[in-house]
Amino acid sequence: MPIEILPTVRLVQGKLRIIDQTLLPGRYEICDIGRVDDVCEAILNLRVRGAPAIGVAGAYGVLIAIEEWSREWVFDSVVGTNRASARVRPEHAGTRLPTLDELRDTLERAAARIVMTRPTAVNLSAALERMRRVWLRDGEVTTTLLELMHEADAILEEDLAMCGALSAHGSALIADGDAVLTHCNTGGLATGGVGTALGVVFAAAGGGKRVRVYADETRPLLQGARLTAWECRRQGVPVTVLVEGAAASLLSAGGVACVIVGADRIAANGDTANKVGTHALAILARRFGVPFYVAAPSSTIDASLPDGAGIPIEQRAGDEVTSFAGARVAPEGVDAYNPAFDVTPAELVDAIVTEHGVLRPPFRFGAS
Amino acid sequence: MPIEILPTVRLVQGKLRIIDQTLLPGRYEICDIGRVDDVCEAILNLRVRGAPAIGVAGAYGVLIAIEEWSREWVFDSVVGTNRASARVRPEHAGTRLPTLDELRDTLERAAARIVMTRPTAVNLSAALERMRRVWLRDGEVTTTLLELMHEADAILEEDLAMCGALSAHGSALIADGDAVLTHCNTGGLATGGVGTALGVVFAAAGGGKRVRVYADETRPLLQGARLTAWECRRQGVPVTVLVEGAAASLLSAGGVACVIVGADRIAANGDTANKVGTHALAILARRFGVPFYVAAPSSTIDASLPDGAGIPIEQRAGDEVTSFAGARVAPEGVDAYNPAFDVTPAELVDAIVTEHGVLRPPFRFGAS
Repeated sequence: MPIEILPTVRLVQGKLRIIDQTLLPGRYEICDIGRVDDVCEAILNLRVRGAPAIGVAGAYGVLIAIEEWSREWVFDSVVGTNRASARVRPEHAGTRLPTLDELRDTLERAAARIVMTRPTAVNLSAALERMRRVWLRDGEVTTTLLELMHEADAILEEDLAMCGALSAHGSALIADGDAVLTHCNTGGLATGGVGTALGVVFAAAGGGKRVRVYADETRPLLQGARLTAWECRRQGVPVTVLVEGAAASLLSAGGVACVIVGADRIAANGDTANKVGTHALAILARRFGVPFYVAAPSSTIDASLPDGAGIPIEQRAGDEVTSFAGARVAPEGVDAYNPAFDVTPAELVDAIVTEHGVLRPPFRFGAS
Repeated sequence: MPIEILPTVRLVQGKLRIIDQTLLPGRYEICDIGRVDDVCEAILNLRVRGAPAIGVAGAYGVLIAIEEWSREWVFDSVVGTNRASARVRPEHAGTRLPTLDELRDTLERAAARIVMTRPTAVNLSAALERMRRVWLRDGEVTTTLLELMHEADAILEEDLAMCGALSAHGSALIADGDAVLTHCNTGGLATGGVGTALGVVFAAAGGGKRVRVYADETRPLLQGARLTAWECRRQGVPVTVLVEGAAASLLSAGGVACVIVGADRIAANGDTANKVGTHALAILARRFGVPFYVAAPSSTIDASLPDGAGIPIEQRAGDEVTSFAGARVAPEGVDAYNPAFDVTPAELVDAIVTEHGVLRPPFRFGAS
């Protein structure tokens, strides 16, 4: 069964093109974004989401800042369409380009706004840091622009390749006939490629194994019910949704072979920040003797943090919990405790799958 | 602070009067039900819910069967309004009443339909069994009718008294300044009185302790976000809602003094069936060293079951999970795993609070 690669984040004719994930599964809609403000809005409101995908979106967001400065189409990219590579449109050579100082100033301000949108995933700040290293190089502005384009495309291309390698390694953990429980969405919609944790499932299915997915609905934003279920249907993998509260029933009943989740940031000791609800799932998996795996690119590892205590946890607005589709669920005046992520201690993680292979504890990640 | 008793289930002028809980917190609406079919619908669709409250509704449902048979108003009750007790309207003496055989036949059929609506809570079948013992007695039909009325009223009155005693005992577990995490709704909306687990909180607050409630939203039907939050606001107790997935974050942060939940059925060894999600919460509480308490009337104890393995678990329709407020959340064709309850093993329960006091493990309940 071939695995479809979704066009989750692309740069097309000087605009950031995304699938608007807030509309799924009801509507599959492409959204072209031409302003940094709108890039920030799209990341903040989870139109584009998933640690690897927002890294790519952040990198392209830097290019959008230049497009916005120039007010005409400078960049194009065809990564992921099996055609060519990045380019600066040749006719642009004759128009006024920013000076290197203007460029740096514009990009620093854009990057500062973009990085603030989501603090937990390391991929966003890491991608912006890679872009910064390019614009801080000395040289001709036209060269810098081209290099920025190449760097952003490289981040997407590496993500595509990472997904392929990671999912191939991880698929060895899944046997024919397995049922797998997952949380949030870690498929093509969360990455530039086939996905991380869900990519592992798709790779196993693509390799001919019969796999079925149990998808935590993942409150409050229902990425599991909306996005994971949608991707599984699209890739032809049987999927059943459950509320987080039913995971103990499911795991205690004994039919689940493993739990596999993604990660937004992994500390040097293996402590793993991921979508809120992951920590509970890891505790349940351990209690019921079900292996608990984390699948994430090595870029998710933040070796500068000795353990998970230093990972910043994004607190989101309470109305994500107290309202649904614009309608109030809880009484007026009632607030919610709404951390977007939690930190699973490394002792509960049975393996971390990256593009380099399957790592077993104890985890000790050093600076790369 | 006085505690308000909600008119959750009453019999008024020959009709079952309930607060339609599916409309809360948006609308507070009273609903008068005159047919057994509609009693069943109301219980099945959780217009009236909570193990003690559906016991009362089931008992009154038997009277509704008689009202439906007679097609005129026979019964009235003023329990809970601080006035008198049950009566059969005197003018009814002159009309045709059922024979005892007709009555028994009618009531057996009604009870069979009512008991099927919700299998897990023992209160519903126990209340119907109490009513059955009355209609099986030999005697004048008019006497039987009056005794049935008295029995149903007694079930409500005992529930009121039970809530008062239980919540008073349980409040000793709560200290001034405590934050308490709870699941689902176990307040006045779930009982004929002030509630069970949430009643304990209200009794502590009523006794002058400053208490704050963290309410699991309780997917899929959001009884925590909708009903517990509403009751807390109404009783003046500060409340914060959270998704089930955030409970590990909350408990690991250390600010919660105890977890307290209700029960739908408790086996002889203390294994406790309660709203799905409870088992996970008990596992988390144990892991983070937070006491886990169950508060339920002794009528919830089913000593005929040695342990929780024999408790029937209601499986509900998948669209409770895959749809929200009539709108599809998961893609079409995706099904859900949707058990309404789970069973928490007794080893995770630090105390069971009933109207008789606070019981500590090991639990060994015998036939009463």
